[in-house]
Amino acid sequence: MTHSDRILMGPGPCNPYPEVIEAFNRPVLGHLDPEFIPVLDETGDRLRKVFATDNPLTFPVSGTGSAGMEAAFVNFIEHGDVVVVGVNGVFGGRMCDVAARAGAEVVRVDAPWGTAIDPQRLLDAHPSPKIIAVVHAETSTGVRNDIAPIGAGKGDALLLVDCVTSLGGIPVRLDEWGVDIAYSGTQKCIGVPPGLAPLSVSPRAVGHIVERPQSWYLDLNMIAKYVTGGSARAYHHTAPISMIYALHAGLGVLLDEGLDNSFARHQSCGDALQAGLVDMGFELFAQEGHRLPELTTVVVPTDRLPAGVDEAGVRRQLLDRYGIEIGGGLGEFAGKVWSIGLMGHTARQRNVTLFLAALGEILAA
Amino acid sequence: MTHSDRILMGPGPCNPYPEVIEAFNRPVLGHLDPEFIPVLDETGDRLRKVFATDNPLTFPVSGTGSAGMEAAFVNFIEHGDVVVVGVNGVFGGRMCDVAARAGAEVVRVDAPWGTAIDPQRLLDAHPSPKIIAVVHAETSTGVRNDIAPIGAGKGDALLLVDCVTSLGGIPVRLDEWGVDIAYSGTQKCIGVPPGLAPLSVSPRAVGHIVERPQSWYLDLNMIAKYVTGGSARAYHHTAPISMIYALHAGLGVLLDEGLDNSFARHQSCGDALQAGLVDMGFELFAQEGHRLPELTTVVVPTDRLPAGVDEAGVRRQLLDRYGIEIGGGLGEFAGKVWSIGLMGHTARQRNVTLFLAALGEILAA
Repeated sequence: MTHSDRILMGPGPCNPYPEVIEAFNRPVLGHLDPEFIPVLDETGDRLRKVFATDNPLTFPVSGTGSAGMEAAFVNFIEHGDVVVVGVNGVFGGRMCDVAARAGAEVVRVDAPWGTAIDPQRLLDAHPSPKIIAVVHAETSTGVRNDIAPIGAGKGDALLLVDCVTSLGGIPVRLDEWGVDIAYSGTQKCIGVPPGLAPLSVSPRAVGHIVERPQSWYLDLNMIAKYVTGGSARAYHHTAPISMIYALHAGLGVLLDEGLDNSFARHQSCGDALQAGLVDMGFELFAQEGHRLPELTTVVVPTDRLPAGVDEAGVRRQLLDRYGIEIGGGLGEFAGKVWSIGLMGHTARQRNVTLFLAALGEILAA
Repeated sequence: MTHSDRILMGPGPCNPYPEVIEAFNRPVLGHLDPEFIPVLDETGDRLRKVFATDNPLTFPVSGTGSAGMEAAFVNFIEHGDVVVVGVNGVFGGRMCDVAARAGAEVVRVDAPWGTAIDPQRLLDAHPSPKIIAVVHAETSTGVRNDIAPIGAGKGDALLLVDCVTSLGGIPVRLDEWGVDIAYSGTQKCIGVPPGLAPLSVSPRAVGHIVERPQSWYLDLNMIAKYVTGGSARAYHHTAPISMIYALHAGLGVLLDEGLDNSFARHQSCGDALQAGLVDMGFELFAQEGHRLPELTTVVVPTDRLPAGVDEAGVRRQLLDRYGIEIGGGLGEFAGKVWSIGLMGHTARQRNVTLFLAALGEILAA
């Protein structure tokens, strides 16, 4: 069975760095092998650099980004704990669902999709929440929420941040911002296929891990004995060796380029794409000043589609004629916006140029 | 960073088939790409053949085998439900922990480690359990538990079976045996790196999925809309694309060889290893008649170790001098038994020959 080689400009996965695919060819080692442990440790070191944190408990959860979200909640919630959640897109909504299933009393702070959440509203939502949770980069809307003001005003609350679409693409500074619990995914601006969820937990938050989380698989008490066990590693579950090789390699590419250079590359690609779309007369969906460079949302130009072609048809033509994947809207914006990702290895000017030209050809038909 | 290429004769991971590593080089596709969906569907078809089932809900959970275990429990348990669990090793014990965290009233049926569980004891343990759960192949002891008699006598209970170390290595026949919920891992007799957990759920068990499982990530109500959604696939979480390529390829190798041929290969390798160990004067740990060919446990021959070398030292010499990984004991048998795997691509006579010769050289020193 053969596959096309796509240009992955949807909301993720992105195209992986070539070095990442090479890493999959490394011989598989056992999860307790003395040659594997340094790879795991170095992966943690690299994640700390990318998260800008000193948190010892920083490692990849053995699941995709949503497993990271679940780990971030279920380890810290006891029945009835108050969790304030900011919701301005699909992933804020998902946080509410995950937190409620863990027994939290969820205090939901909604903001219109496409706009950012006012940090003060999150701080004012409850006098003494256990957790304040927010998505840094809302994949479903292309909006960046401000994190630092929440960290500055959080008081005794734990600040929990979804960095799935931000990590590696725009600045993320856990320690400087006062973030206690953060998770990400590999398939966005890290440039690795989906499968792991980098997680980082501050020492203060480690002190709040519940004794027996409802999830055995994601129990940080037990996982910590493996990932930060020093010379005495205790087996918990079998680590996904090959995916960890891939993540290790992707982080290496990112750090070799330099985080600031990666941010600049994502920014310049996003700027070029957004300027190009505006030049073509399209309306950007996300609030100005809070637009993500790595994930652009644009209102579907219903009045400019070729005769007899709907928005899904345009996306299908992009895929079939040019091998370009972009995303349709998620949630309530399905069919109303397009999501165009420029993340990881996909964040290249040539992809911007090709996409704008291809879209122009399709709409001119 | 370079790695050694080990012969992985521990309790997992095994060495992957070469075709599996090749599959990691396939271009990454989006999880909704019209060229990816057939790969996912064919992976389900192949899993149905290997599980010997017609269950439509058969797919790889996006986590390692323990995530499969958690999915198998949390989707079917409401607070206070009675779950009978057979325990004759580490993984039966883990089942009790997972079930209890999901709110089950666990009725535990213990049998001495190294022996099989009498199926009738599981059937007699409670008059009307919601679930009867047992491990088919106990990795920690090398023992095979009988499944078919439990299926024949289960009444209205759901039969939940851990097939992590059995699937692909010894016969597993879900439909014939009356198994309702089964999970496995990729890194054992399927010959794929760790990272996914094949799961299969009978139509009867699908009717018992709870409305809102405590885990969002593992919620089968939502996942089913993606994996068995026909032409209308609903995004749940981003599928781990590259690992699914790897599993698809590993199942292809297994089915090309033929399941019966794979079983025969695992059996002949296990027989040769166990005969060789007995010839060397060692004591096999698992009960005769219930010994797994793919995972052999042998009592550490304390009186025959080289002067100044403990059992961990022998394993370290195997690793350093011969590149062979074997496992120490798990749980209460740490330091008392060795676990020697012959699973997937590792199940080759040449590995048996090399291991026995290498162990002989070390013990003769």
